[in-house]
Amino acid sequence: MSTLNNQINQEQLTPTQRSQIRRIPQRSHYERQVIYQILDEGLICHVGFVVDNQPFVIPTAYGRVEDKLYIHGSPASRMLRSLLSGIEVCVTVTLLDGLVLARSAFHHSMNYRSVVIFGTATLVQDTDQKLEALRAFTEHIVPERWAEVRSPNRQELQGTLVLSLPITEASAKVRTGPPLDDEEDYSLPIWAGVLPLQLVASEAIPDSRLHTGINLPNSIRKYTGTEMTI
Amino acid sequence: MSTLNNQINQEQLTPTQRSQIRRIPQRSHYERQVIYQILDEGLICHVGFVVDNQPFVIPTAYGRVEDKLYIHGSPASRMLRSLLSGIEVCVTVTLLDGLVLARSAFHHSMNYRSVVIFGTATLVQDTDQKLEALRAFTEHIVPERWAEVRSPNRQELQGTLVLSLPITEASAKVRTGPPLDDEEDYSLPIWAGVLPLQLVASEAIPDSRLHTGINLPNSIRKYTGTEMTI
Repeated sequence: MSTLNNQINQEQLTPTQRSQIRRIPQRSHYERQVIYQILDEGLICHVGFVVDNQPFVIPTAYGRVEDKLYIHGSPASRMLRSLLSGIEVCVTVTLLDGLVLARSAFHHSMNYRSVVIFGTATLVQDTDQKLEALRAFTEHIVPERWAEVRSPNRQELQGTLVLSLPITEASAKVRTGPPLDDEEDYSLPIWAGVLPLQLVASEAIPDSRLHTGINLPNSIRKYTGTEMTI
Repeated sequence: MSTLNNQINQEQLTPTQRSQIRRIPQRSHYERQVIYQILDEGLICHVGFVVDNQPFVIPTAYGRVEDKLYIHGSPASRMLRSLLSGIEVCVTVTLLDGLVLARSAFHHSMNYRSVVIFGTATLVQDTDQKLEALRAFTEHIVPERWAEVRSPNRQELQGTLVLSLPITEASAKVRTGPPLDDEEDYSLPIWAGVLPLQLVASEAIPDSRLHTGINLPNSIRKYTGTEMTI
C-alpha cells in the first residue's frame, strides 16, 4: 500500500546460484521495479532462517526504504536473536491474485506475484536510521499514518530491534493469465477461467475506548471497501 | 475454503522444543481444530527447507486430508527434490485479518492467524493416496470442483510428485481484537481501531477459448463477491 518509493527503477539484479529461478523461468523477473512493487503491496513477509539445521519460517511485518528491507521485533524474539548472529536469511513475500481454474484437475493453478530475497541481516544501530525504519513500517501499513500518531519515544526505540536486509540478491516470480489446458481438453464442456482475488478492507472498527468527536482520518477511510493496493 | 474435514477435533498437540511459541504465549494454540481451520482457509503455504545451511522459503499450494498436509510439484523442482531426501521442513500458513491502528506508532500491529508445522515429508507412492492428495488440492481451492473437471490421467499422476507432511508437531498463533495502547495514550486525540481485511473474489473471468453455452458452475459462482472463507 505504500506510496513511498514510487520512483521507476529499471535496474536489473544479477541472478545468483540461489536467487536464479529454474522452474518455469519465463515467470521470473529481476528488475528492481517489479520486486519493489510486490514488496510495497504486500503486508506480511515470511522470514526463513536456520538454527541447528532446523528451518524456521515466521510471518512478520516489514518495511522497505529504497534497497533495504526492514524487519523488527522484541529483543526476546528467537527470530531476531538468531538473525543477529549473521546467519543466512531468506525472506519471501507472496501476493495471491487469483485462482486459475482449468478444464483438467492437473492444470489448476494460481495467479500470484512473489519475491524471494537472500542475504544476511544487520542490526540498525543509528537512531535516525532506526526512526526511518519505524516510519517505513507505519507508512507501509497506512500511508500518511506516521504523521497522525504518537512517535516512538526513547524507551520504545531502545526496546525494539530493527534489522536491515539489503535487496541485492532477489528475484520475483509472477503468474498471470488464463489456465493452460492440454490442447485436446479445450473441447470439453467444462467451465474454465480465472477467479480474481483481492485483499479488501471492510469498514473500520473504532476502538471501544475512542473518545467521541475523533473522526476516521482520510488515510484510513480511503481503504475501506477498496483493494489494498497502491 | 475447504468444506472437507469439518469434524470437530478437540485434540491438543503437545508443544515441542521447536513448536512451542515463546513470544506472547497467550496467542498460541495447539488444538487440532484451530490448526485445521487455519490450514483449510488458507490457500498458499510457505515451505522452508535448508540446503547447505542456506534457508529457502517457497510459496506453494497445498491440501489437507485429516492429519496430513500434502504439497506437490514437478520432479524437477529443487524444493521437492530437497524435501525428498528427508530433510527437516517448516511449513507456515498465514491469514491476515486486519490492520491494528494504535494511537502510537509503536503499538501498530496486525490481526492474523498463522500455523507453523515442523517435520519431515515423505513421498506418496500409493496411487490411491496420490489421487486423494490431488483431489484435496482441487477441492481446497474450490469445493466441488473435483467432480466437474477432467481427472488426472496416468501420465499426469506419474509426472507429479506428492509429498505428505504429518501434522503432529505444529502450533497456531492468533491475534484478534483492538489495539493495545499505553494507558496514558488513550487520552490522545488520535483515531484508533482495526481495519478488517478479507481476501475477496471478484467476478470470474471466463477463458477466452471457452465454448459458448458453458455456464459458470455454482461451485465458483458462490465465491464471487464474497470472502474466501468456509
